[in-house]
Amino acid sequence: MTVSVSLPEVWSALEDVRARRPLVHNITSYVAMTVSANALLALGALPAMAHATEEVEDFVATADALVINIGTLSSDLSAAMRKAAKHAGEVGKPWVLDPVGCGASAYRTHAAVALAALAPDVIRGNASEILSLAGEASAGKGVESISRAEEATGAAMALAKRTGAVVAVTGAVDYVTGGGAPIPVRTGHALMPLSTAIGCALSAVIAAFTAVRPPREAALAALAVFGAAGSAAAGRCRGPGHLPAEICDALYLMSPDTLGQHARIGAPVAG
Amino acid sequence: MTVSVSLPEVWSALEDVRARRPLVHNITSYVAMTVSANALLALGALPAMAHATEEVEDFVATADALVINIGTLSSDLSAAMRKAAKHAGEVGKPWVLDPVGCGASAYRTHAAVALAALAPDVIRGNASEILSLAGEASAGKGVESISRAEEATGAAMALAKRTGAVVAVTGAVDYVTGGGAPIPVRTGHALMPLSTAIGCALSAVIAAFTAVRPPREAALAALAVFGAAGSAAAGRCRGPGHLPAEICDALYLMSPDTLGQHARIGAPVAG
Amino acid sequence: MTVSVSLPEVWSALEDVRARRPLVHNITSYVAMTVSANALLALGALPAMAHATEEVEDFVATADALVINIGTLSSDLSAAMRKAAKHAGEVGKPWVLDPVGCGASAYRTHAAVALAALAPDVIRGNASEILSLAGEASAGKGVESISRAEEATGAAMALAKRTGAVVAVTGAVDYVTGGGAPIPVRTGHALMPLSTAIGCALSAVIAAFTAVRPPREAALAALAVFGAAGSAAAGRCRGPGHLPAEICDALYLMSPDTLGQHARIGAPVAG
Repeated sequence: MTVSVSLPEVWSALEDVRARRPLVHNITSYVAMTVSANALLALGALPAMAHATEEVEDFVATADALVINIGTLSSDLSAAMRKAAKHAGEVGKPWVLDPVGCGASAYRTHAAVALAALAPDVIRGNASEILSLAGEASAGKGVESISRAEEATGAAMALAKRTGAVVAVTGAVDYVTGGGAPIPVRTGHALMPLSTAIGCALSAVIAAFTAVRPPREAALAALAVFGAAGSAAAGRCRGPGHLPAEICDALYLMSPDTLGQHARIGAPVAG
Repeated sequence: MTVSVSLPEVWSALEDVRARRPLVHNITSYVAMTVSANALLALGALPAMAHATEEVEDFVATADALVINIGTLSSDLSAAMRKAAKHAGEVGKPWVLDPVGCGASAYRTHAAVALAALAPDVIRGNASEILSLAGEASAGKGVESISRAEEATGAAMALAKRTGAVVAVTGAVDYVTGGGAPIPVRTGHALMPLSTAIGCALSAVIAAFTAVRPPREAALAALAVFGAAGSAAAGRCRGPGHLPAEICDALYLMSPDTLGQHARIGAPVAG
Repeated sequence: MTVSVSLPEVWSALEDVRARRPLVHNITSYVAMTVSANALLALGALPAMAHATEEVEDFVATADALVINIGTLSSDLSAAMRKAAKHAGEVGKPWVLDPVGCGASAYRTHAAVALAALAPDVIRGNASEILSLAGEASAGKGVESISRAEEATGAAMALAKRTGAVVAVTGAVDYVTGGGAPIPVRTGHALMPLSTAIGCALSAVIAAFTAVRPPREAALAALAVFGAAGSAAAGRCRGPGHLPAEICDALYLMSPDTLGQHARIGAPVAG
């Protein structure tokens, strides 16, 4: 049986993030750095963006959690990512893998598969990325998903079982699975995919929650909080332009009321 | 005789971009990545930002168009750019060259000249960049132009003839030439040069239009649509701070009325 | 005796920046590039972002000032930084060092110490960074300061004496010292540390002022203008999301009244 998480429990996790101010080490895409750092700060966490192989172990050792995002992969970054992921395992720090564009090139898929084998605590991707990382047919268009999240829940469960990670597949509805029946999170807004790196920022926010909760609870709480922020933010926007700034404001101003109004963590779907 | 493009034809091209959602592969400056990706998404296209030499050919093969921007050039990026440009030629994908800062250093000028020799479909730059790339005296200040676009129309025509590319030189008035008399596009706003990477985002938008129209029509349509968005956006701003976000909203909300109100594609100037 | 700078003198310096439009060469963090370039443009300066070792000397030679920021350090960037800093000394261009995260890793601390030995005109950092760079115990958390600026004024004075640089340590109150008693600058807003790379943008703005004033006056003027912009901007914000855009608008719209309303350059504190 898969036990879900209630919104009061989500709120309690957010309060713990705000109180503890976890340091989240980001090895991430150049596209995503600024919005990820700003989302973490608005949430109440502290970001560190550092990717030199000479220093990633020092940052992992100091940080409370790590997020690795392969968006603008290169050989230098790839080496730093593997080193950081291994060290996170050695020193017991939770880490999140965002396999951006997995399936879009053999290079990228191999890098994502290699990182997934290093025991991430959470893997978050869109349907195409999760399908590809799980070894099923990919339906991506570059780094964009053209599959629905519902089509990837089976792949997410298989990927969770193989890697030991909690897998979050995000889309119009998000799903979280630790291998069992995926739990849906109903929140967010259709404008969110029209602003770049919003999913990347979500992965960073998941990492912040892994500093205060076990992986499955952390993923569910982060999806609910970030999706509620996105939904509240979109209500203040005419288009996608101001969405990143509004999401940061909504994270900064998040309240139990806003959370309750914009997020539902539903019953498990049959898996 | 140089045939221009009407605003209804521009609108039709935008409708085709929105319907087809072309995937635009960006090998671009770290400064320009976020705003380029957001402009493409707001326009209705899909961005991919990937620059590892190991995967650029895969992305070119999947993409509908490519944009190469040398803003934050390095030896790694330079190699990836040449590889991607060559592959675009091999597989028949249209591509746009943005020779940022051409003339500001010998290194940068050589890189831009080498890329221009690889048959880009469109080259877009400010007056200083186009003058330098055409082999005439540059008057840049770092990557900023201190020449007026009108001073570079002759160089643009020569560059178009030598490379086979359509050349767009942008400034207070923009000009497009395929070697013949430059066609002016009167749009945009004086705030636009006060926000970084707006010209880079324009180059990405031109690439999106090359996926649905031949190069000259694509360049004219992109200049008109992007300039109209900039002009409409500036009307909502007190300064340059919110301009990138407002341009994205204006691209997202673009209508025939807004286009007609903010853009004029004029008669050819004597060249 | 330490002589301060009056707000009319600060305003005069800003007018000189706006009139001369200094070209500021940035070798900076990927997180900070966009906001730094936008702050410089809004201020009235011209940014150039270029970091290839093959061209940094050309950019230094053309630029009016240089800022080096080690935020996303790598071996390639580190080599470019040292080359640029040396060349700035050879050709007599003022430059500013922003030792982001100094103390967070041995790699980062060594790089910052080596750059500080190359005679920067100004060093700007938070308390943790200045304490670490001065060789005293660091109290950073990743790249975030958890010390108060007041705890680092002694270290700032020692660092200024050792390096010959003017040292600015920023926090709730900022302090500037050329080795003598630190001069406090009371401005800014508590939202500013909740938006990434705002301090980095400040360092770029200091560099712009070094093109028109000696280092100590430049640092004081930049702190007052940027802090006033931050304070005015925060008054228009519900949270940190729109702060970078609002700071750019406030820099663009800065007036003697706004400056006077939001900044105080106080009496020297006992050092």
